[in-house]
Amino acid sequence: MKEEVLIVKIGGNIIDDAHKLDAFLDDFAGIEGPKILVHGGGKVATAIGAQLGLEPQYVDGRRITDKETLSLVTMVYGGLVNKNMVAALQSRNCNAIGLTGADGNMVRASKRPVKEVDYGYVGDVGSDGVNSALLSMMLDSGLVPVIAPLTHNGSGDMLNTNADTMSREIACALATTMQVKLIYCFEQKGLLRDMHDEHSIIPRVDSALFDELKKDGVVSGGMIPKLENALQAARQQVSMVVIGHAAELTGLIAGKAGTRLTNTN
Amino acid sequence: MKEEVLIVKIGGNIIDDAHKLDAFLDDFAGIEGPKILVHGGGKVATAIGAQLGLEPQYVDGRRITDKETLSLVTMVYGGLVNKNMVAALQSRNCNAIGLTGADGNMVRASKRPVKEVDYGYVGDVGSDGVNSALLSMMLDSGLVPVIAPLTHNGSGDMLNTNADTMSREIACALATTMQVKLIYCFEQKGLLRDMHDEHSIIPRVDSALFDELKKDGVVSGGMIPKLENALQAARQQVSMVVIGHAAELTGLIAGKAGTRLTNTN
Repeated sequence: MKEEVLIVKIGGNIIDDAHKLDAFLDDFAGIEGPKILVHGGGKVATAIGAQLGLEPQYVDGRRITDKETLSLVTMVYGGLVNKNMVAALQSRNCNAIGLTGADGNMVRASKRPVKEVDYGYVGDVGSDGVNSALLSMMLDSGLVPVIAPLTHNGSGDMLNTNADTMSREIACALATTMQVKLIYCFEQKGLLRDMHDEHSIIPRVDSALFDELKKDGVVSGGMIPKLENALQAARQQVSMVVIGHAAELTGLIAGKAGTRLTNTN
Repeated sequence: MKEEVLIVKIGGNIIDDAHKLDAFLDDFAGIEGPKILVHGGGKVATAIGAQLGLEPQYVDGRRITDKETLSLVTMVYGGLVNKNMVAALQSRNCNAIGLTGADGNMVRASKRPVKEVDYGYVGDVGSDGVNSALLSMMLDSGLVPVIAPLTHNGSGDMLNTNADTMSREIACALATTMQVKLIYCFEQKGLLRDMHDEHSIIPRVDSALFDELKKDGVVSGGMIPKLENALQAARQQVSMVVIGHAAELTGLIAGKAGTRLTNTN
């Protein structure tokens, strides 16, 4: 039987709230077995950027990473957020080790080609971009990788990479040798059929249902790429992919909460 | 025979100069065998701090680390400086992995007790503070630890720790099982008898000579704690301790340049 590993992704909504983050880290630290945490950035980067005189620029809801923004996210995601989370997990007897994709050449990416939009220093992970041997070695040593959404291009540049994508790439790479559970935490208890009714959780979503939900406008905006990432992981050997609320982490892992993304077509 | 490891410490004077840093990283990447790089901070932390409205505060030439300064150094040393250096080494085929003391519980410290001065969030490393098993595992895997001058207290706080001290603590811990060479790079070609004559390098210094040099005023200011660190390492089983110019790295390692600190009393 393949060894199991749990990958949990958390976003800015938890990172920005000290109380929620503490509760989440308590739960995460308490989970037995090999595990990985992937974190996003949060508003702290925008706040520090504003103090430094940087105006965030967006195209189609995606942030443009110019040279100054790259420095900003390298220090905020890779330094401040990552290390404070590692120290917090260490205090909970969780042997966390903070990493970016550059560390140990863990995740290599290519700068996104300029088409209509120049996204700047944004990295797309290639099919062999994830160094799963390094991650396996760490997991075997009882270490808990805490991964910031940053990659490198092998030519000396750090690159900004979406945390949902990074989680999926890592999950898919590890799934070739391990049994992987991937949990995406976000602001809701799952995918809701009616966004005003938190009991309207859709328990399972496959590609066909996803297409319907998009057509009906149930899924829109930033949820589309998030669910596409999750569905792609489900199609690529990741044994369980769930999206739900960080406050229900143990329920999500047990398959008793959230929305499960499945590969049925 | 004990396995060898090289530990090189670089300071702000190199980090702040892109040209010098590139040349140093070329040399460092080219060195064969297990190695560790420990880096200081540089002026970039002060510059970014100024942009964020932080005024550095010093007592007796030592920086006070208040909560805001701790966040600043965590992001600048642990994020910006560390990750850019890791990416630069990766582009030179050197499998660097960036770490703070919190990562994998590598270096644990205690917040310095308040006596006449409250240094704030500054960490003193205890006698069993260094996790040499983790470092050995990484070295055995061909990884090259790149270490930022930050520790943690095990209770969730990051702490600011002097890079010279951190290098010494790591060197002494590894010296119990490995043959350690420790190279401190600084602005000069070695310890100079006459600071205006760069050919007046003192080739060897032991504690007795150090005391004389202090009395004569040849050694003063920030050089005193730097040399005390180096001499302490020489007394504690570190097989070779050298201080010299980063541009002469290979000469320093070969014992053909710089000032060697020795334990002869």
